[in-house]
Amino acid sequence: MDSQQFREFGKAAIDFLADYYDNIRDRDVLPSVEPGYLINKLPKEAPEQAEDWKTIFEHFTDSVVPGTTRWHSPQFHAYYPTGTSFASIIGGLLGDGLGVVGITWMASPACTELEVVTMNWLGQLLGLPKEFLNCSPGSGGGVIQGSASEATLVCLLAAKDKMIRRLKSLNPDIDEDLTKIKFVAYSSDQSNSSVEKSGLLGSMKMKLLKADPSGRLRGHTLQKAFEEDIANGLIPCYVVANLGTTGTCAFDPLDELGPICQKYNAWLHVDAAYAGAAFICPEYRHLMKGIEYADSFDINAHKWLLVLFDCSTMWVKDGYDLINAFDVQRIYLEDVKAEIKIPDYRHWQMPLGRRFRSLKLWTVMKSYGAEGLRNHIRSQVGLAQHFANLVQADDRFIIEPEPAMGLVCFRLIEGDKITKKLLNNLTEKKKIFMVGASCKGRFIIRMVICSQFTTKEDVEVSWKLIKDETDTLITYEKVHMKSITTMNENIKNINMCEKSK
Amino acid sequence: MDSQQFREFGKAAIDFLADYYDNIRDRDVLPSVEPGYLINKLPKEAPEQAEDWKTIFEHFTDSVVPGTTRWHSPQFHAYYPTGTSFASIIGGLLGDGLGVVGITWMASPACTELEVVTMNWLGQLLGLPKEFLNCSPGSGGGVIQGSASEATLVCLLAAKDKMIRRLKSLNPDIDEDLTKIKFVAYSSDQSNSSVEKSGLLGSMKMKLLKADPSGRLRGHTLQKAFEEDIANGLIPCYVVANLGTTGTCAFDPLDELGPICQKYNAWLHVDAAYAGAAFICPEYRHLMKGIEYADSFDINAHKWLLVLFDCSTMWVKDGYDLINAFDVQRIYLEDVKAEIKIPDYRHWQMPLGRRFRSLKLWTVMKSYGAEGLRNHIRSQVGLAQHFANLVQADDRFIIEPEPAMGLVCFRLIEGDKITKKLLNNLTEKKKIFMVGASCKGRFIIRMVICSQFTTKEDVEVSWKLIKDETDTLITYEKVHMKSITTMNENIKNINMCEKSK
Repeated sequence: MDSQQFREFGKAAIDFLADYYDNIRDRDVLPSVEPGYLINKLPKEAPEQAEDWKTIFEHFTDSVVPGTTRWHSPQFHAYYPTGTSFASIIGGLLGDGLGVVGITWMASPACTELEVVTMNWLGQLLGLPKEFLNCSPGSGGGVIQGSASEATLVCLLAAKDKMIRRLKSLNPDIDEDLTKIKFVAYSSDQSNSSVEKSGLLGSMKMKLLKADPSGRLRGHTLQKAFEEDIANGLIPCYVVANLGTTGTCAFDPLDELGPICQKYNAWLHVDAAYAGAAFICPEYRHLMKGIEYADSFDINAHKWLLVLFDCSTMWVKDGYDLINAFDVQRIYLEDVKAEIKIPDYRHWQMPLGRRFRSLKLWTVMKSYGAEGLRNHIRSQVGLAQHFANLVQADDRFIIEPEPAMGLVCFRLIEGDKITKKLLNNLTEKKKIFMVGASCKGRFIIRMVICSQFTTKEDVEVSWKLIKDETDTLITYEKVHMKSITTMNENIKNINMCEKSK
Repeated sequence: MDSQQFREFGKAAIDFLADYYDNIRDRDVLPSVEPGYLINKLPKEAPEQAEDWKTIFEHFTDSVVPGTTRWHSPQFHAYYPTGTSFASIIGGLLGDGLGVVGITWMASPACTELEVVTMNWLGQLLGLPKEFLNCSPGSGGGVIQGSASEATLVCLLAAKDKMIRRLKSLNPDIDEDLTKIKFVAYSSDQSNSSVEKSGLLGSMKMKLLKADPSGRLRGHTLQKAFEEDIANGLIPCYVVANLGTTGTCAFDPLDELGPICQKYNAWLHVDAAYAGAAFICPEYRHLMKGIEYADSFDINAHKWLLVLFDCSTMWVKDGYDLINAFDVQRIYLEDVKAEIKIPDYRHWQMPLGRRFRSLKLWTVMKSYGAEGLRNHIRSQVGLAQHFANLVQADDRFIIEPEPAMGLVCFRLIEGDKITKKLLNNLTEKKKIFMVGASCKGRFIIRMVICSQFTTKEDVEVSWKLIKDETDTLITYEKVHMKSITTMNENIKNINMCEKSK
């Protein structure tokens, strides 16, 4: 493909994407394909000869697109949003198009520096304490990771390294290996699976402590766990607090957990993957009260901030904690020294290579402006509230827990079985996509406002789909139950007849 | 930005990139900026109001582009290539544009299945044993990781998990923690820094064993290390073999290392990040003799196979080794069961989320065809050979070690000091970018054919830059030395005069 064909294919691809989003409501949110549809359809071997761009594009639209779940359909209400926006797609295109790898400053100065700038911009917008910002005195700063999973693991590893350095400074004779196996990490049992996985991957015991009935990990629970573990010879090392749990969007009280972590020198990491984006609106910042106790803070700008996956924005109070944990020098990379103000970001992350991800964050922040981003958050919370009102008005449903941000959890009063059946039926029909969770031992359906395109009318479409399916289901259940009752009656009668014979 | 503005911005971005590559020779490979250039230039805060696309684009071309290192300039000869191609940029655009996250099959069937298909295609092209392929019986298969660093760490963690399961099956009473700290990983002292880092991150002692004079880790060295460690109560667990070391592109003999790993049940991971791409040409496959002993194999398709970073293609003989190490279930993800043939790739990697990366691999394989990809490899090796011939004809230089693939290492006979000076001077002038390494204790300059656009004439331009700088340097040194000699003579004469007084 030469540059002329690239111009043609590229512009056709841009038009395809514009059309795709203009017509996002035209197709089902879930694709109508069976497992293996594409594996069976495509050739078993790579083509020997080159194909022209029109053929490739045709195969893309014919084979790939029909098997794509529409994450940006207004009826996609599963998980949490994954960000996208036109500005972000172009930021990604330009970043990928330049094709640089930001392993050192010299490997692409703009790649490093734009990340510093955008992370300061976003950190300020979120109202983070200035200790987290590169533009303040001190050694704090932001870095873009690939995902919240990665951020949680990166900080766990940094916490482990920091704790062992501290203990060795107190007693140089300790055995590192035998000491490290005593380290314990803590989070709530409402944490995302990636938190548990970080303990698994980072070789640290991860204790998932019982959340309170509101889904929050409380200070007294953490304190008790610390005390018990210390009594058993273990060493509390790392705590992951959630601001917006995955299941029900609960907020752990940082002002309860923080002082305990501080007292015991445990690293406090805040996973605000989804809900953290809301802190760009001052009215939500009370939910991060106690943030000054945190050592690290992460939100997925690629969730609720209109930036394309992957762009997990993470800040630390002390960049040297990362550098100490991750720096392994080699001669072929020694073109600049590790510095905090113009960081060698390869020492702030697990892999060596890194993409020019800040460009898509930059294009989004410029294209929306701070005002546009705040409007986006507020509008989505408003739409969730509208949906909650619709559910509330139907007395077959219970909303539980209280809606938070763009998430509304609900269930049918009749019980788990029929709630599950409702979700299954809706999923099978592919018009709307939600997933389940559990709350206080009950099965709930999570409805999240995900798409940036969602309007009030779209929310009403979603509600109508749920309501209609519920009508059908309850009618069916009633008829079904009645027929079972009738059948049982008949059997009873027959039995009685038999007996009387 | 609405869809109309997206069409305009998107097409302007496509034209920008086409022009950028059409004119890639017009600018210096290294940018003329000082550390802090962008941090100081850009506003300290995010814009409050939205900016229109033309403003954003202007800021991009005015501020970002001038600070970008031209990784695809024909005079970029540093590190190893980072892949790009027009086909790949569009594959990336379409993948990002659809904005799906492939956490489960249902989260986007095409995202999972196209990865299965392309990884089978590429695995076959590379001539991998069929045990590594998803399309064969058994539980092997391929998965795209973000980087070779990540692949090395993923397999280290899987190796650790597999070893502890094996030991527990032999003796259920062993203490997991105390046993795991005895595990040892091995690689050569020529390994990429990411290998050492994987030991650090994965909490496993990593021993970097001395390579032979050719830079290869030999079987007897590994055997001796295993024996010594076992005698000391340690447990060999994981070996990273290099096919193409970063410094000098040396190939570890898998047929020597493999049987030893097999005997001791140690996991053998093959890091062929750069050079592995060459195995699509049968004439290079002798360099992976013994590959059948490997448990896992990784190449960066984003290095030498024209695919945009990130696309690190990794194959394992047994996908369950990954699933066992990484699977942590939660209710909101339980929509499909972990299977090998249609994998839940989130259990094959560290993070939960994943992008639609196979699309760019797919567009590249289709756009070039197997034939085109082989031509690319052969052409680049030919260009390196041409460069080597030019160096060889100049008796001021020594080529050492032997050129391999697209890499030619050389130094000035006069010694390390002047070789370093040559590299520094060239880097300062920004017209050509290479990095140094060490070989047999000597400082060498690594010249790698990186850009896909490189022609024979470009190689000659690069050589002329080196030759001219050498001429200047040697003339300067001679004059400089002569003046020093003259000065010393004068001092001597003065001293003699003094003495004779």
